[in-house]
Amino acid sequence: MQKIKVGIVGGTGYTGVELLRLLSLHPNVELVAITSRTEAGLPVAQMFPNLRGLVDLCFTDPKDGALNTCDVVFFATPHGVAMAQTPELLKHGVKVIDLAADFRIADIAVFEQWYKIPHTCPEVLAEAAYGLTELNRDAVKKARVVANPGCYPTTMQLGLYPLLKNKLIQLDNIIADCKSGVSGAGRKAEVGSLFSEVADSVKAYGVAGHRHSPETVAQLNQFAGDNVHLIFTPHLVPMIRGMFSTLYVHLNDNGRALSNAQLQALFESQYANEFFVDVMPWGAQPETRSVRGSNILRMALQRHGDLLIVLVVQDNLVKGAAGQAVQNMNLMFGLSETTGLNIVSLMP
Amino acid sequence: MQKIKVGIVGGTGYTGVELLRLLSLHPNVELVAITSRTEAGLPVAQMFPNLRGLVDLCFTDPKDGALNTCDVVFFATPHGVAMAQTPELLKHGVKVIDLAADFRIADIAVFEQWYKIPHTCPEVLAEAAYGLTELNRDAVKKARVVANPGCYPTTMQLGLYPLLKNKLIQLDNIIADCKSGVSGAGRKAEVGSLFSEVADSVKAYGVAGHRHSPETVAQLNQFAGDNVHLIFTPHLVPMIRGMFSTLYVHLNDNGRALSNAQLQALFESQYANEFFVDVMPWGAQPETRSVRGSNILRMALQRHGDLLIVLVVQDNLVKGAAGQAVQNMNLMFGLSETTGLNIVSLMP
Amino acid sequence: MQKIKVGIVGGTGYTGVELLRLLSLHPNVELVAITSRTEAGLPVAQMFPNLRGLVDLCFTDPKDGALNTCDVVFFATPHGVAMAQTPELLKHGVKVIDLAADFRIADIAVFEQWYKIPHTCPEVLAEAAYGLTELNRDAVKKARVVANPGCYPTTMQLGLYPLLKNKLIQLDNIIADCKSGVSGAGRKAEVGSLFSEVADSVKAYGVAGHRHSPETVAQLNQFAGDNVHLIFTPHLVPMIRGMFSTLYVHLNDNGRALSNAQLQALFESQYANEFFVDVMPWGAQPETRSVRGSNILRMALQRHGDLLIVLVVQDNLVKGAAGQAVQNMNLMFGLSETTGLNIVSLMP
Amino acid sequence: MQKIKVGIVGGTGYTGVELLRLLSLHPNVELVAITSRTEAGLPVAQMFPNLRGLVDLCFTDPKDGALNTCDVVFFATPHGVAMAQTPELLKHGVKVIDLAADFRIADIAVFEQWYKIPHTCPEVLAEAAYGLTELNRDAVKKARVVANPGCYPTTMQLGLYPLLKNKLIQLDNIIADCKSGVSGAGRKAEVGSLFSEVADSVKAYGVAGHRHSPETVAQLNQFAGDNVHLIFTPHLVPMIRGMFSTLYVHLNDNGRALSNAQLQALFESQYANEFFVDVMPWGAQPETRSVRGSNILRMALQRHGDLLIVLVVQDNLVKGAAGQAVQNMNLMFGLSETTGLNIVSLMP
Repeated sequence: MQKIKVGIVGGTGYTGVELLRLLSLHPNVELVAITSRTEAGLPVAQMFPNLRGLVDLCFTDPKDGALNTCDVVFFATPHGVAMAQTPELLKHGVKVIDLAADFRIADIAVFEQWYKIPHTCPEVLAEAAYGLTELNRDAVKKARVVANPGCYPTTMQLGLYPLLKNKLIQLDNIIADCKSGVSGAGRKAEVGSLFSEVADSVKAYGVAGHRHSPETVAQLNQFAGDNVHLIFTPHLVPMIRGMFSTLYVHLNDNGRALSNAQLQALFESQYANEFFVDVMPWGAQPETRSVRGSNILRMALQRHGDLLIVLVVQDNLVKGAAGQAVQNMNLMFGLSETTGLNIVSLMP
Repeated sequence: MQKIKVGIVGGTGYTGVELLRLLSLHPNVELVAITSRTEAGLPVAQMFPNLRGLVDLCFTDPKDGALNTCDVVFFATPHGVAMAQTPELLKHGVKVIDLAADFRIADIAVFEQWYKIPHTCPEVLAEAAYGLTELNRDAVKKARVVANPGCYPTTMQLGLYPLLKNKLIQLDNIIADCKSGVSGAGRKAEVGSLFSEVADSVKAYGVAGHRHSPETVAQLNQFAGDNVHLIFTPHLVPMIRGMFSTLYVHLNDNGRALSNAQLQALFESQYANEFFVDVMPWGAQPETRSVRGSNILRMALQRHGDLLIVLVVQDNLVKGAAGQAVQNMNLMFGLSETTGLNIVSLMP
Repeated sequence: MQKIKVGIVGGTGYTGVELLRLLSLHPNVELVAITSRTEAGLPVAQMFPNLRGLVDLCFTDPKDGALNTCDVVFFATPHGVAMAQTPELLKHGVKVIDLAADFRIADIAVFEQWYKIPHTCPEVLAEAAYGLTELNRDAVKKARVVANPGCYPTTMQLGLYPLLKNKLIQLDNIIADCKSGVSGAGRKAEVGSLFSEVADSVKAYGVAGHRHSPETVAQLNQFAGDNVHLIFTPHLVPMIRGMFSTLYVHLNDNGRALSNAQLQALFESQYANEFFVDVMPWGAQPETRSVRGSNILRMALQRHGDLLIVLVVQDNLVKGAAGQAVQNMNLMFGLSETTGLNIVSLMP
Repeated sequence: MQKIKVGIVGGTGYTGVELLRLLSLHPNVELVAITSRTEAGLPVAQMFPNLRGLVDLCFTDPKDGALNTCDVVFFATPHGVAMAQTPELLKHGVKVIDLAADFRIADIAVFEQWYKIPHTCPEVLAEAAYGLTELNRDAVKKARVVANPGCYPTTMQLGLYPLLKNKLIQLDNIIADCKSGVSGAGRKAEVGSLFSEVADSVKAYGVAGHRHSPETVAQLNQFAGDNVHLIFTPHLVPMIRGMFSTLYVHLNDNGRALSNAQLQALFESQYANEFFVDVMPWGAQPETRSVRGSNILRMALQRHGDLLIVLVVQDNLVKGAAGQAVQNMNLMFGLSETTGLNIVSLMP
């Protein structure tokens, strides 16, 4: 099979280098261009020495036209970049996977409220598929543009979907207490992400609301066929990678009628054929390190009377970003979803 | 003033060495005996080099009688040790502060159910004061025996007290999502606390229930004058010290009638005179590092409609253990509560 | 090609689970038996959840005979286990790769002095090949028994070999200041490896001498054709994986005659064809994270007058243990050396 | 006694907040002004919540004149700031303690070569005392301007002084392999200090030379009365605070004549009366955490034939910066050197 020509816009951040880690060994991929306005000319492996001997490319200027020759371009950029460049790429027949938020939220008013920038290509937004692969596979397969989900939203959606779809929980009382590693803040030079600021400490953040809320709520509403009310509290913990979401939900009358074993079976059957979603035994204790570096998302259930707790772990840079993006690319190009993603987590 | 003669039983663990850190500079304390069956004869400063030049004592055998000559003895031991030795100490006029659970739970049946050991001195238990200083000051002042609270319970009680006392929240729906540093697991040689097992990872634990639940619920019930239902989920995060408790409560009709400013004022007035409880401005983001090494507990409020979130941070070894124990000792001996505890947190 | 039947003795430690990570995806390997006396019957993936869905085996008793049916058995055990079982395995035509020290030191007296146990099979020791692959490839190819090198010795040997072979440095003044992550201490329940003991701190250890000294010196002597004097100071730093060796050597007259460019060229040509040894540009700053999880060892040179510094990094569990063991297995079974080891380091 | 009026210029960095931690509890100090051009008006305790309730000041503009009313001003600023403002302060009778390099290097040419800025007040430089307190006490006592030493230089000087003063080691072969925590890089927003860049990794840096070299060499030359040749290799390790210097020196004929016990006695007698220098027993293993948060510097000796190793630990922000600055202030104002510095290290 001919290799897929891949371009990456914004290869200098953590999702960019994670795409490179995964794609440099992908058997069906040829890396064609990795762009960075600020680093054009620099060998990629000089910035990321883990790629020495594996990636020979230099960063190039996004305006040099190489992206137009690709089969697919990943945007690992701040919000707003993908929507500026996607229409031109589509004209050249290039598919687009955006790891930022430009195409995640269908409602333009909501997008503009949270991201404080106008949306410049509503028509592309209208056709974009939301790339939570397991829950939207058919749309992703056919899409020219995929909006890769946020990291927190991935855990909340996969953890709550079986309950919402089956109308087993109260919709007005869902609490997501989430803990993220620091790489989620990106590779930006900010005091708040310095080692000496975040090591040996925990804090909550996003008090005034987190941008992953509207994206998540829009999806949960679809699952439920009704409006959900979500309390989402993100916390920062001193680890590089990893996300732990503790989801507290109250069973409704339907849910209360189910035994623990039935709830467990419901989750297991939902994800029985999903390579990247692992439902652990009832009462298990998932650890984020058990998915470090892999595209697996693990979950386990606990119950206290009518309150159900779903514990979800993932690597925020893999299933929460670059890994799911590659999973989506595989689907879009007719490959097995697991191609290039068969990785064992690094433990310890 | 004559110095208080202090003994410590079980000086080789983390609460033991933390007592030594605080007491070695306490202006009214004379360290008389630090016992350890296994380490008798070893200079304390050889095991804990931070004490070189400050503590000249050697560990001694608890049976050598020195403890009987003390004014007060701290038990920094596993559960069960204090109750075995306290009656004898009381006979010699020695006061006791137990940092373990022996005297925390008034209901013997509940104690025995959770700790799996029979309670051997119910009469001492009956007279013991529960040492959450701010909420039980009068009893502590007069007590011969003080049960120092658990670390998690301290955060939950101080965070919820103003709400329960004033009957502002629903009692059947209280969620405490708590994150603890690893020192909370003690200085025991266990695989689960190894650096390579817990660094760069997060997990929940205590699925089957945590021993700090019954202690907390018993106290919360007293505050509320009714039965509360508490969901308590402890998590382990990769930091040495620090505890972050995210408390989710639902306002009842009384609570809903209050504005954010009124709720804030309620907390501020409750703790206005408390040196060790700091109510931060509405919406502030407490960090555990802001209390690293100090006896301060900080909290801040957030609100989402009828749901109120109380964010509480403390150093689990100080306000959550040794610091509060010294605070109690100060009270018991008529000293200013802050004596020897005027410490600035280590930040960064 | 028929798959290689592999057994692992001692699968519950860090080198054991690292072997499993690498071998579970190795295209030419069939895992047949993973033994543990203490955990027989337990599913391997229950202890190491990163292997869920990848390794279906349970730990088995080493005495059940399954090991005798293997093509090769890895010993990821404490010192002494391999020598007890290897003669029997050899009788059954099973090859052996020992990740402990049983076959590393040819001189039995030296072995017994440092490891405090008698050597029980000198004849096996005599035939064993020392498995520092790049420097002993021919012997490894033909070997029935391979002694996989220690982690520190791997860095010191590969860093010093070009200098010693070409007689460029003074032999009586070699200093190796080495820094290791905590996983090097293994998965034993010991106070000294607890998170709260080693996080946020650095210490030197092995003051009275480290067991990796005699192994290293024996090899360096061979390279030099003369006796070298090595000062080796291991330090413990708060990271899970990773080893950083700073090697200080003094150029002799031969060495002083060489320019920096010539020294650089010497190292580059030595390792030009080595997939797993990466000589970085002169003056580069290798980071341990650039090899996290991969079998690559990186090095770079600095010079201050007659003093040359070789900076070497590796992942102690991969090139320093399990990865090099798989590299040796590949050689022993006629496979390409990189089979199953084409991994990109996890960065960040 | 009247309190010392203290000003701090540049209170937003790590040495600034560390000065505040120490001075806010100092019994003889009144904090008068903490300046920051960028943060003027902001309450100090809002940026550093560990100071809530302890420091009521706001950052002020350095030009508002308050500094001129102080008895002493600390500069916790980038290089160049102190020399711009010191002459004016001296006119107002204000003493100055500079924690940057402006007055550390007597040779202006050397200073300008390494710091790339012209020196604007050579006359102040000429009168400034070098503030390595233990080795320069008399000059500090009388000084109007004190140059507080760099962190690395403090460890190297105190570790080598007894050997150089007594002419026991070869001067042309001194190696300092130093490991520093990340707070040494300051509170600047730089990618290289991000948590995700430095956690779980070790690297060497300063290949092209580190600015602490010329400062150190100038002092060592004085101790030796001759020129020393120093190889200094700084490494970055993933801890917040702490510095570990491993000093390798070769005994000369004088030194070789001494037994280990004599060398140990030499160090012990040198520092017998120094509260802040702790010579541990021969062969001890100092850990950086044993000095975390305290002004103590600990050292221990090892010997391998003619090679002597001095292991030195300190908290880079305390004895390596703010603590030593306060120690100097105490001297300059006739106080006991330990005033306000009697702190027990935080361990664990």
